[in-house]
Amino acid sequence: MKKVPLHIVKAGGKIMDDESALQSFLKDFASLDGHRILVHGGGSEASKLAEQLGIPVQMNEGRRITDAPTLDVVTMVYGGLVNKKMVAALQALNCNALGMSGADLNMIRARKRPAGDIDYGFAGDIREVNSPLLMRLLKMDCIPVLAPLTHDGNGQLLNTNADSIAGYTAMALTRWFNISLDLCMDLDGVIHKEEVLPSVSEERYKALRADGTVKGGMIPKLDLGFEALNEGAESVRICSFKDLKNPENGTRLCL
Amino acid sequence: MKKVPLHIVKAGGKIMDDESALQSFLKDFASLDGHRILVHGGGSEASKLAEQLGIPVQMNEGRRITDAPTLDVVTMVYGGLVNKKMVAALQALNCNALGMSGADLNMIRARKRPAGDIDYGFAGDIREVNSPLLMRLLKMDCIPVLAPLTHDGNGQLLNTNADSIAGYTAMALTRWFNISLDLCMDLDGVIHKEEVLPSVSEERYKALRADGTVKGGMIPKLDLGFEALNEGAESVRICSFKDLKNPENGTRLCL
Repeated sequence: MKKVPLHIVKAGGKIMDDESALQSFLKDFASLDGHRILVHGGGSEASKLAEQLGIPVQMNEGRRITDAPTLDVVTMVYGGLVNKKMVAALQALNCNALGMSGADLNMIRARKRPAGDIDYGFAGDIREVNSPLLMRLLKMDCIPVLAPLTHDGNGQLLNTNADSIAGYTAMALTRWFNISLDLCMDLDGVIHKEEVLPSVSEERYKALRADGTVKGGMIPKLDLGFEALNEGAESVRICSFKDLKNPENGTRLCL
Repeated sequence: MKKVPLHIVKAGGKIMDDESALQSFLKDFASLDGHRILVHGGGSEASKLAEQLGIPVQMNEGRRITDAPTLDVVTMVYGGLVNKKMVAALQALNCNALGMSGADLNMIRARKRPAGDIDYGFAGDIREVNSPLLMRLLKMDCIPVLAPLTHDGNGQLLNTNADSIAGYTAMALTRWFNISLDLCMDLDGVIHKEEVLPSVSEERYKALRADGTVKGGMIPKLDLGFEALNEGAESVRICSFKDLKNPENGTRLCL
């Protein structure tokens, strides 16, 4: 059976706070052909709102520590403000967007990350993506727009990394689709000595990580990217949100 | 062709702020048979958040005047916090809930209310409910959970009365379903001389409205209820959220 193409795009970083950059990114996304899924982060809105409400923002290695008041904040910002604005903008661009958290249609089930040296609070590690339902939605020509929130199946929402959502969604669908995964961000790709690397192998990645070239939030991006490639994704690219329509730019992962 | 039953339930009022009352209401909702749609209001959360953020709360006859910062607040609270918490709770009760605003899947299109004596700002008057898509979702055994937000199709989200969403959704689906519409609230029904009226005809409603028995937020509830009945809804009831499973309680509208 011939696999159908599916484009999974993750948008994160400063674009989420810049209305005109976001509009132009959404226009690019809307002009892509065929089946699509958009996954978004939250930008700095959640931290801004937390500060306004006097809720301390606690981060560890780029990951948010999510106590109960912070979970409410990210549920409001990611699940409400950011998600619904993107959906309304995509609808105006003739994309039949459906905004979802992982709780909606039981789309992504996670478990609360066990407290280790650090207790991340209501942070979710993904257990399962509901691929049959996702496929039904795609067949209805609907374009899922996934917020970085999951649930544990027992009524608890969980804050979940958007790169993980994009990566796990890709892995759950490789059996049925030819998947291109684009992880879009502020930087132009994986940068080494001020140059964007056009491609990175798993071998090379290990070296770049060892010498500190790849660090922080880039590590989970590359880890998930290689995991998706190993699970059968057709292409994985890490690129600037400006380059969604310029497939020659950014860094491609290769096995 | 025999019509299939569909239960449309609107939940509003203080229940939205009372976690244990909400849980017990959702349990009742989850135990209803067959196709269901839940529509929710926002309770006092939106006003609370607006106050915390220093955004003035402006109401006129129970309706919120929605300037741009207020629209962000209701998008966060209705579309994010309230909607996603209800969806996660319903999933835990084995209800395959899908939280949606009217922008999602272009489900409810509205137009910005023209400024008259009062400018309600980003308030939406419903133009069209996407009944074919709603039917497809119901056929997938999905339970739509509708937040009181719509869009204008040009990228603008609009704050929209939850009773209107429930009423218009009922009207859009009467051709295909046998609809029971329950508008649940804090009061036990339409109250006259301290007694709940078991039923109210359109004739009687006019008199009750004229003598001031029915006023404020009850007016649009009854207007929409009678409109839905006239359009073919099988039953319309105004009742306490405690009586969702007690069909003998509350006030039934009759033609």
